[in-house]
Amino acid sequence: MAQTYGTPFYETDQMSDWKPMNVLVLGGDGFLGSHLVDRLVDMGHRVTVFDRFPYRTTRNLEHLREKIRLINGEFANRQDLTDSLDGQEIVFHFICTTNPAESWNDPLIEVEENIRPTLTFFEIAVRQGIKKIVFPSSGGTVYGPQDSAVDELSTPKPMSPYGIAKLTIEHFLQYFHSRYGISVDIYRIGNPFGPRQPVFRPQGVIAVWMHAILCGTPIHIYGDHTTLRDYIYVRDVAHLMTHSMHHLTSSDIYNLGTGQGTSVLQLLDIFNKVIDIPFDYQLHDRRPSDNASIVLNSSRLLNFYPGFKFHRLEDQIAETWTYFKTAFQTTCSA
Amino acid sequence: MAQTYGTPFYETDQMSDWKPMNVLVLGGDGFLGSHLVDRLVDMGHRVTVFDRFPYRTTRNLEHLREKIRLINGEFANRQDLTDSLDGQEIVFHFICTTNPAESWNDPLIEVEENIRPTLTFFEIAVRQGIKKIVFPSSGGTVYGPQDSAVDELSTPKPMSPYGIAKLTIEHFLQYFHSRYGISVDIYRIGNPFGPRQPVFRPQGVIAVWMHAILCGTPIHIYGDHTTLRDYIYVRDVAHLMTHSMHHLTSSDIYNLGTGQGTSVLQLLDIFNKVIDIPFDYQLHDRRPSDNASIVLNSSRLLNFYPGFKFHRLEDQIAETWTYFKTAFQTTCSA
Repeated sequence: MAQTYGTPFYETDQMSDWKPMNVLVLGGDGFLGSHLVDRLVDMGHRVTVFDRFPYRTTRNLEHLREKIRLINGEFANRQDLTDSLDGQEIVFHFICTTNPAESWNDPLIEVEENIRPTLTFFEIAVRQGIKKIVFPSSGGTVYGPQDSAVDELSTPKPMSPYGIAKLTIEHFLQYFHSRYGISVDIYRIGNPFGPRQPVFRPQGVIAVWMHAILCGTPIHIYGDHTTLRDYIYVRDVAHLMTHSMHHLTSSDIYNLGTGQGTSVLQLLDIFNKVIDIPFDYQLHDRRPSDNASIVLNSSRLLNFYPGFKFHRLEDQIAETWTYFKTAFQTTCSA
Repeated sequence: MAQTYGTPFYETDQMSDWKPMNVLVLGGDGFLGSHLVDRLVDMGHRVTVFDRFPYRTTRNLEHLREKIRLINGEFANRQDLTDSLDGQEIVFHFICTTNPAESWNDPLIEVEENIRPTLTFFEIAVRQGIKKIVFPSSGGTVYGPQDSAVDELSTPKPMSPYGIAKLTIEHFLQYFHSRYGISVDIYRIGNPFGPRQPVFRPQGVIAVWMHAILCGTPIHIYGDHTTLRDYIYVRDVAHLMTHSMHHLTSSDIYNLGTGQGTSVLQLLDIFNKVIDIPFDYQLHDRRPSDNASIVLNSSRLLNFYPGFKFHRLEDQIAETWTYFKTAFQTTCSA
């Protein structure tokens, strides 16, 4: 049975040695980041969010404005970063301006916009005495083509510049760990979905499909029943990433998926059940920037939480649909 | 029995479908590059060398000036690169301005000086219709700590920014292969040594030791009998890399080492036998940027050349010593 969101569901939530920490969330106003911030605030931590706030408003955190500190900064600006790291104990780094489809056509942007500024961030974090850096990597793009559910010992074979950059950042993070002793946790996440997922990026098929349906345009399906993905509800991701808060001095790589493979055609079946307005679809071949199949064996992480139950895919697609129908305000392109 | 250098020693040297090709060697005036150029000229190929020639003279190729074309260019200059690639069929990319010890203290230089300009080179090479790119990677730094002789299926665990950059470039090269169909060969080379190895870099212990001995200063030994390296004579490296000339349309990763592990203390024994002037030494702990132990299983490549015999380490250290004694002209620092 699925857990209800917000109730403590594993033992470490009730640990007797719990104490509030100073947490910085880079990109905390985004999709994954904001769900983590929700969770950290629930837990009672002192949360600072570093993001771009060009209009003096947040995208996803208005409900928490009184409870968190917001810093409007540029990731490429060393001074902005240094200031934001002052007094922090642990940093979650969600800033990522690229996606697999875009950098497939322009690999240099991974070097310019991801690898280089992230290295600079690691250097500053070490100098500022940060105890732990948490990095969300990408199970779907780091491993590349694999035959069955992969664990963390599988050899990564990234196909896309996006996956190459994620893996390169993982390696540099491990270098900073061995060089300076800073703790690092790396989560190779499956395909997260849920409320707040952006719809204008060519990444996150569930949000993209829902957006198309709301706009009355056909959904585009790339792949077939062999194109398996490990869809994971974003709140399960946020829950499980707080593992790093309870283990401040350890360092490891964790797969973060459900272990269940779902094909795009099975996803279409679920949409047919859940979506309560009619929609059309078009089938296409898999795109070259897409991995054929990726399912994650996440037992390394889940062994810490023996009672953990993932939300059921169909239930959470329904919840996501409710969110998009009610909260979603956008213009549909012609 | 060791083969004599210069005699054809495997069947493909005498293949009936042999034809001369246009070959560009980036960094062809350097240590590894110049030995490959020697070999390619011997084979009858049309060789262009792209390197820096600030004094209108070569470091290592004066004996071939009438037989090869030299281009004085900057690797970071797109126009220089584009011009040099014009009309070429295959490119060997030996340009590397970093080394493990230096970038251990400044990881960003790997991004700036290696990863980024190499990506730009790959893009230009694809546009210019190059058929194959050959990249010398680094077995010693890409694999990281491993228990026994590693083959190409072992999971790389690079420890140093140098090794991380080599592996990142490997991954990008495979992306260019899958994206554009250009052939790519990657050689993960052991610890090459021999004539022409630079003595002023903290890389290449045999040359560095010989330089110290010639200057009358003590040699510094980092590590112990557990610090194994796979020393390979540079001419064996050059020989085996011409594999790519005979297989223009295939793409693969090859380990390139002897499979024999030698500890720094065994190396010291060989020096005691071979070096004919007295020298002192000082023992130190292994440096953090050094891998503990690396021996390469190169059977994937050697299976193509069943008759191949590596030069004997002791013989080639003796030959290298003769080279350094006679050709070596430098000032010893105080």
